[in-house]
Amino acid sequence: MAGIYKVEDLIKTGTAIFEAAGFRKDYAERVADNLVTAEARGVYSHGLVHLIDYVEFFQRGMIQNNDVEIVRDFGAVTLFDAHHAPGAPSGELAMDKAIEKAKEHGIGLSVVKNGTHFGMAYYYARRALKENMIGLAFTNAGDMVAPFGGKSKQIGTNPICITVPTENGELTFDAATSVQAFNKLYHASVEGRSIPLGWAIDPDGNDTTDPKLGMQGALLPFGGYKGYGLGFMVHLITGVLSGSSLKRNDDGSIEENIHNCGFNFCAIDINRLIDLKDFFDGEKLFADRVAASPKKENVERIYLPGEIEVEKYQKALSDGIFLDNGVEGNMLKLKERFGL
Amino acid sequence: MAGIYKVEDLIKTGTAIFEAAGFRKDYAERVADNLVTAEARGVYSHGLVHLIDYVEFFQRGMIQNNDVEIVRDFGAVTLFDAHHAPGAPSGELAMDKAIEKAKEHGIGLSVVKNGTHFGMAYYYARRALKENMIGLAFTNAGDMVAPFGGKSKQIGTNPICITVPTENGELTFDAATSVQAFNKLYHASVEGRSIPLGWAIDPDGNDTTDPKLGMQGALLPFGGYKGYGLGFMVHLITGVLSGSSLKRNDDGSIEENIHNCGFNFCAIDINRLIDLKDFFDGEKLFADRVAASPKKENVERIYLPGEIEVEKYQKALSDGIFLDNGVEGNMLKLKERFGL
Repeated sequence: MAGIYKVEDLIKTGTAIFEAAGFRKDYAERVADNLVTAEARGVYSHGLVHLIDYVEFFQRGMIQNNDVEIVRDFGAVTLFDAHHAPGAPSGELAMDKAIEKAKEHGIGLSVVKNGTHFGMAYYYARRALKENMIGLAFTNAGDMVAPFGGKSKQIGTNPICITVPTENGELTFDAATSVQAFNKLYHASVEGRSIPLGWAIDPDGNDTTDPKLGMQGALLPFGGYKGYGLGFMVHLITGVLSGSSLKRNDDGSIEENIHNCGFNFCAIDINRLIDLKDFFDGEKLFADRVAASPKKENVERIYLPGEIEVEKYQKALSDGIFLDNGVEGNMLKLKERFGL
Repeated sequence: MAGIYKVEDLIKTGTAIFEAAGFRKDYAERVADNLVTAEARGVYSHGLVHLIDYVEFFQRGMIQNNDVEIVRDFGAVTLFDAHHAPGAPSGELAMDKAIEKAKEHGIGLSVVKNGTHFGMAYYYARRALKENMIGLAFTNAGDMVAPFGGKSKQIGTNPICITVPTENGELTFDAATSVQAFNKLYHASVEGRSIPLGWAIDPDGNDTTDPKLGMQGALLPFGGYKGYGLGFMVHLITGVLSGSSLKRNDDGSIEENIHNCGFNFCAIDINRLIDLKDFFDGEKLFADRVAASPKKENVERIYLPGEIEVEKYQKALSDGIFLDNGVEGNMLKLKERFGL
């Protein structure tokens, strides 16, 4: 097995699988598009490896076919309740609202409560680019990362995405606030490989190269206390600001809804602050200087943020996407299971 | 020498020094307040070590007494031109405008062009707290950091600050996107100390423990390519978005104005998205869980973001600020020079 697939064919296959699993048609298509887009950009940790997870999430009721609802709408800010609809369609709806608000007010912010798995943050933020806006996207996630000085999972991998248009393209930062995704440890454990020091700690808080011990212990934040601080703040502006993380019981007591996700999307209309020509010219001077700056020995090229992903995406559109045995096998099994 | 000073006395002394150096009275007071606030929070790299720098910046015309001007005002966003006024008063004006906009629209954004030295980013963001808003502050700075894979200074230490109110206090992330401040290398070189590996590279791109070689080479971004990406993006939303970094010449050619700073401030009115009680309850459950989570061996306490600075600040207000020989000596020399 293993083979090369066209992007549009993978989206069709994913859509058919999710529809067969019970997703409503419009949601099935957006979730498939979300996973294939991540795969095409080389962000495999958010790609088609999750086909089977989404089927399971749906069947266990963690993802539902509910409509997304606007709960509050004031000026440039909107609160949505996703009612556990999939991340892709609810996030797109909320991001588009932030863009609409930015057209009206120069900036727009949408916060989503009761979200579910979100995938690649860029998937949402990118929607700002076609309007020549800056797009930002954040989410919290189940606890996987140790706080600085701690030895247990307390904070999600809580990603930060900011994407900025250039005259003919884009520049994008999109990364988890942990050193690595949890999935990378999982893959290493399945394949019997060790992991580099610095990715994770074991349950006693010691650095480990054993992915299984790392999964039992915790992921580490990137850059020590700085990544810890950023991940912590992302939780506040997503899980907490949306109200997703708080559960009020009937007796008046409160508890944390740790695995309930909140999203945060922002769009900024560049043209309301500076003429686009000036923005693009200033941006190009800076980006060109950085890209052309002296390289360390054995470094072939200085990549600008997000360049690798754009190049992979363009290659995927022209040449197709290579799926390895594992991912392809799961996809074929799902097709067979649903008689597709 | 070396001694303990009251916070209010240091602000008075700083104000008197800056006024004697030629700053207009209102600017002198805010710049003094800015440096003393950083010193009181233990952020020494942005504290009174800069007293003498500000006098020099002013005398060399890099900081001026000009009024700050609103250039564009649309909906929830505002562009200011600081006309090289000091960072403290121009930044406060712009942050307050973002807060005013957030009252009206739920979110407000201010961008400042032609800013000057900014100091501690939290100094501005904190103004949102008293309104129960989330505050964000960013700036670019002269190039000191190498891009990932590079070996020369191309990007500023471009800090990120986000501060969030709690029921009785605050939680704050405020950090440069470099591993360390340039000042720390300078201090080490003056005192003949070596620096830890990982802070900086020499001009050949090799890791170095020699602060002088590190100053000639470049600082490293925190967390490798992730800190590089964040610092790069901060430059785009500050220097570039404000128009500070672009210079159009009379012949139509363009060039980069590398050392010209732009600021970016944002305020988010929590109460427009979620009832404050729900926000504070959700925040407290999360913060208490993280703070009480299991500690690694030899770790005494898990600090929440910004807790150390708040404790130092409270101690400074009650017990005064200790100034070491160097900082005190410079202050006394300036007093003498201006006959104070």
